[in-house]
Amino acid sequence: MCELLGMSANVPTDICFSFTGLMQRGGNTGPHSDGWGITFYEGKGFRTFKDPNPSCQSRIAELVQQYPIKSRAVVSHIRQANRGGVNLENTHPFTREVWGNYWTFAHNGQLTGYEQLTVGRNQAVGDTDSEIAFCWLMNQLEIRFPVLPVDMTPVFGYFAECCDTLRQLGVYNMLLSNGEYVLTYCTNKLHWITRRAPFGKASLIDEDVTIDFQRETTANDVVTVIATQPLTNDESWQKMVSGEFRVFHLGETVYHSVATDIGLHEE
Amino acid sequence: MCELLGMSANVPTDICFSFTGLMQRGGNTGPHSDGWGITFYEGKGFRTFKDPNPSCQSRIAELVQQYPIKSRAVVSHIRQANRGGVNLENTHPFTREVWGNYWTFAHNGQLTGYEQLTVGRNQAVGDTDSEIAFCWLMNQLEIRFPVLPVDMTPVFGYFAECCDTLRQLGVYNMLLSNGEYVLTYCTNKLHWITRRAPFGKASLIDEDVTIDFQRETTANDVVTVIATQPLTNDESWQKMVSGEFRVFHLGETVYHSVATDIGLHEE
Repeated sequence: MCELLGMSANVPTDICFSFTGLMQRGGNTGPHSDGWGITFYEGKGFRTFKDPNPSCQSRIAELVQQYPIKSRAVVSHIRQANRGGVNLENTHPFTREVWGNYWTFAHNGQLTGYEQLTVGRNQAVGDTDSEIAFCWLMNQLEIRFPVLPVDMTPVFGYFAECCDTLRQLGVYNMLLSNGEYVLTYCTNKLHWITRRAPFGKASLIDEDVTIDFQRETTANDVVTVIATQPLTNDESWQKMVSGEFRVFHLGETVYHSVATDIGLHEE
Repeated sequence: MCELLGMSANVPTDICFSFTGLMQRGGNTGPHSDGWGITFYEGKGFRTFKDPNPSCQSRIAELVQQYPIKSRAVVSHIRQANRGGVNLENTHPFTREVWGNYWTFAHNGQLTGYEQLTVGRNQAVGDTDSEIAFCWLMNQLEIRFPVLPVDMTPVFGYFAECCDTLRQLGVYNMLLSNGEYVLTYCTNKLHWITRRAPFGKASLIDEDVTIDFQRETTANDVVTVIATQPLTNDESWQKMVSGEFRVFHLGETVYHSVATDIGLHEE
């Protein structure tokens, strides 16, 4: 299994603190030593840093930890390979341009029967179940919505349905973003926390680091962090349930649904 | 105008030396202060580092200069904006997945009438003439070759024709790669050099750095560097002519043609 880390915020925010915790799980406090990647959006553009080497030893991960890149939407992943070789093309996150936006995807879990998914115009470059699932997902959405509607509600509803379909193939925990929205889906393991005023202190589980958010933020900041497992031991993280789909925008939940049964989603 | 830098090599080779020269032109010895980017291929995967800030001041550029990422195919660009704002989505190189490969593109020049180019399924995310030209180019190729043939000769021939069409819109100097091939096209300014045994020494024009390639290479290495302007002052760079299209593979030229007239290309 792998670990996911995402962020949605209403002001450009750096993710150095959370990323520091996650990176330790890449071969040090965790077994996820088959590469890592992180995508930061800035407007419609993005930067991705990735490495097929363990994150706890990576020079590039060191830079990302120390250099406060500020972003409103982040998708990150550390990998413990199950499907597909350990190499750069199989390293998450994956990005494709759809509807004139860059969409970036990371997956935690394992799927079976994924070879049958029809990917359409977006082909997988590597050979992971994750990238094929991503290509299938975006293909389904493009067929249903050749042009992106202004009201995203039906789009999110269909995203949730497609995620349910993928959950039928195994474990499908997902982060997906276009820089504006951060979409999350849980099969068995995904947590989130929204930090807002009054801000307090927090301590990382994986490393001896404490942060005082009060000193790092302003009163209007809203910052949501999404992670496979909670990253701090003195805050209340929300555990997502199986079949839960949640969309964040500027740090706030703007769409939420839970599958009441496979194929059925209710807001 | 901008500056391009590319590499094609038969062994994974670092580009630190050439990149060091180029980066000085990003706001120091040159006026190209509107961002920079570099893409390194490793197998079918790639890493891109980019920054809308001047390269001579960039922390990320510093990492790339010091950290010898070894690659067989590299595309790099420093920007002096003419079309499109200075932001991350307008920062070259641009990448799209086509035929199950990541294709990475950088452009030097300025086009007019580019708004009329039909981009098809690959839409531009930013608003530069360059990204639109790239999307149009890949769309033309996909229409002509829905599946990539084993023999690339007709594909390269059509690439050259499409580049000629773009040259009719203005200045179009290009680097394009899928990690295996590095495609180059010249309207008015592009140079290349192939280094092979016996290797000698070379000195950068833009910074007081000399390298002894003999110490850095083995006898079988073949490394081609492509740049807008020569980067060294003690080697013989080949100047490309207007309408010249040249494809490198593992450091060697594998396809070459020159437009004898607009729309006519001869090998």
